[in-house]
Amino acid sequence: MKTYLECIPCFFRQALEGSRIVGATPKQQKKIVDAFARKIPQISLEASPPEIARIGYKLLRILSSDGDPYRAAKQRSNHCALKLLGKLKGKVNYSKNRLLTSVELAIAGNIIDFGVKNNLNIKEELKKILAEENKVIHKQSIFHFAEFKQVLKKAGDILYLADNAGEVVFDRVLVEEIKKEYPDKNIYYAVKEKPVINDALFEDAKVCGIDKVVRVISNGTDAPGTILALCSKEFKKIYKRADMIISKGQGNFESLSNEKRPIFFLFMVKCPVVAKETGCKMGNIVLFYNLKKNGTIRNKKISR
Amino acid sequence: MKTYLECIPCFFRQALEGSRIVGATPKQQKKIVDAFARKIPQISLEASPPEIARIGYKLLRILSSDGDPYRAAKQRSNHCALKLLGKLKGKVNYSKNRLLTSVELAIAGNIIDFGVKNNLNIKEELKKILAEENKVIHKQSIFHFAEFKQVLKKAGDILYLADNAGEVVFDRVLVEEIKKEYPDKNIYYAVKEKPVINDALFEDAKVCGIDKVVRVISNGTDAPGTILALCSKEFKKIYKRADMIISKGQGNFESLSNEKRPIFFLFMVKCPVVAKETGCKMGNIVLFYNLKKNGTIRNKKISR
Repeated sequence: MKTYLECIPCFFRQALEGSRIVGATPKQQKKIVDAFARKIPQISLEASPPEIARIGYKLLRILSSDGDPYRAAKQRSNHCALKLLGKLKGKVNYSKNRLLTSVELAIAGNIIDFGVKNNLNIKEELKKILAEENKVIHKQSIFHFAEFKQVLKKAGDILYLADNAGEVVFDRVLVEEIKKEYPDKNIYYAVKEKPVINDALFEDAKVCGIDKVVRVISNGTDAPGTILALCSKEFKKIYKRADMIISKGQGNFESLSNEKRPIFFLFMVKCPVVAKETGCKMGNIVLFYNLKKNGTIRNKKISR
Repeated sequence: MKTYLECIPCFFRQALEGSRIVGATPKQQKKIVDAFARKIPQISLEASPPEIARIGYKLLRILSSDGDPYRAAKQRSNHCALKLLGKLKGKVNYSKNRLLTSVELAIAGNIIDFGVKNNLNIKEELKKILAEENKVIHKQSIFHFAEFKQVLKKAGDILYLADNAGEVVFDRVLVEEIKKEYPDKNIYYAVKEKPVINDALFEDAKVCGIDKVVRVISNGTDAPGTILALCSKEFKKIYKRADMIISKGQGNFESLSNEKRPIFFLFMVKCPVVAKETGCKMGNIVLFYNLKKNGTIRNKKISR
């Protein structure tokens, strides 16, 4: 997905909010905004939003003493999500369709996103998303669950692209469910190599305990998405070989939406630009299979 | 009021929306955004928001064939507001407190603002603002009506600073009411000299019929507010001499909030930054007297 002009004000908002989280003084905040403004004329809108956002987050990292301004926020998200683990597993255990519930929970976990919204109460937000009346709304969105089941059944190697810290706990619920049904599946869970916003790193995967279920790898980058041109050789090898790719979050969708690999994009629609691009509404939860026959994301055929 | 860093993303949004209203191609839109981005590092945040926004709107004007990209929108606002005139006058006629109702209507007319919101249904928005349950909320805001009455009574020369086209009709209701009660008051109604967004020009004042009630003057500028340093000598003379200044809209508040003249600011709070500055909530209607004793806008004493 290319960058829309509407993304530009949002990049500035992110740079500003980020600079505050880093604890920048007002003078430093203005410097960040100025430095980012100087980059704008050099930017091509053919780049995906995460490619451009990465420039802003790189500027921020310089200001942070340990290069990871969101570390404390990530730790809070991890702990908050871990406290919910029992409840999430209970929801799956009591569900008539365990896989479906696990997928829904994995998408719901995508509310944890500091790029879009800095202050959130995970518990409260989750309650809203999982409420029965909202599920009806979500199901009117793109939801290629039949294809998900079908491709999953046949897949040997699965590559799961992580998004945010904390959200990893929700991903763990889904991969544990997959492993329970298909113990032989080979699942790789890809996190970022270096800090960017609250994106999950290896340490987050470990804290959230997903490393006990699947093999955690790094994609080799510090981009808030999966920019293949920047990814490590090892990651790209796995990416090309995988029979199924489960991609979490808007950032991964924005950077991989034009790819021809069997990717399932699981995310919440959190900004008007992605809503426009997908034909969905803000707040919708999406399960989109990019190789779905006779269906593009814009004329969203509902398979369920 | 100085510019907050939060205003910067909003300036970009305005530049972008404006470039679309001008009918700019996507390439031209990017050029506008780039040109504005290049200005950002040169900008001091000690300037008021209208001073900075003016730079963006100047860039837009170059693209417009007749230098007035919002002309059609302004004409629509004028006609739409004129159709409501009978109803507005009716509201005043049936009111137990005619002056209060006129002031409320004048503030309500401030919803017409293309800088903040491009698409609006004046009638629908007005209905919401004037609904009884909302009035209660508005009255919890800053509302220095006792002072307004007091200063009005004694004032010989009154300077009324216009904001947007269409809104002029609502201003007309208020100045007609003032003239009805005090036929001897000398009221100047100041519009902008050159087009900027949908701000009222002399032609709008004429179409809305306010020129029959008061003397319409120009402030000599193309700024979306009242930047005194840019205003004409004639305007400044009247400004300094006036016993009472009635200032409409956020732009005038942002540019004059630090002044020591007897100014009553009548506006709707339309952005989070002004909400923060005033201690009010978004959507609040405000009547703020800047010379009020023992009261600043931040600890908002309610005088009514």
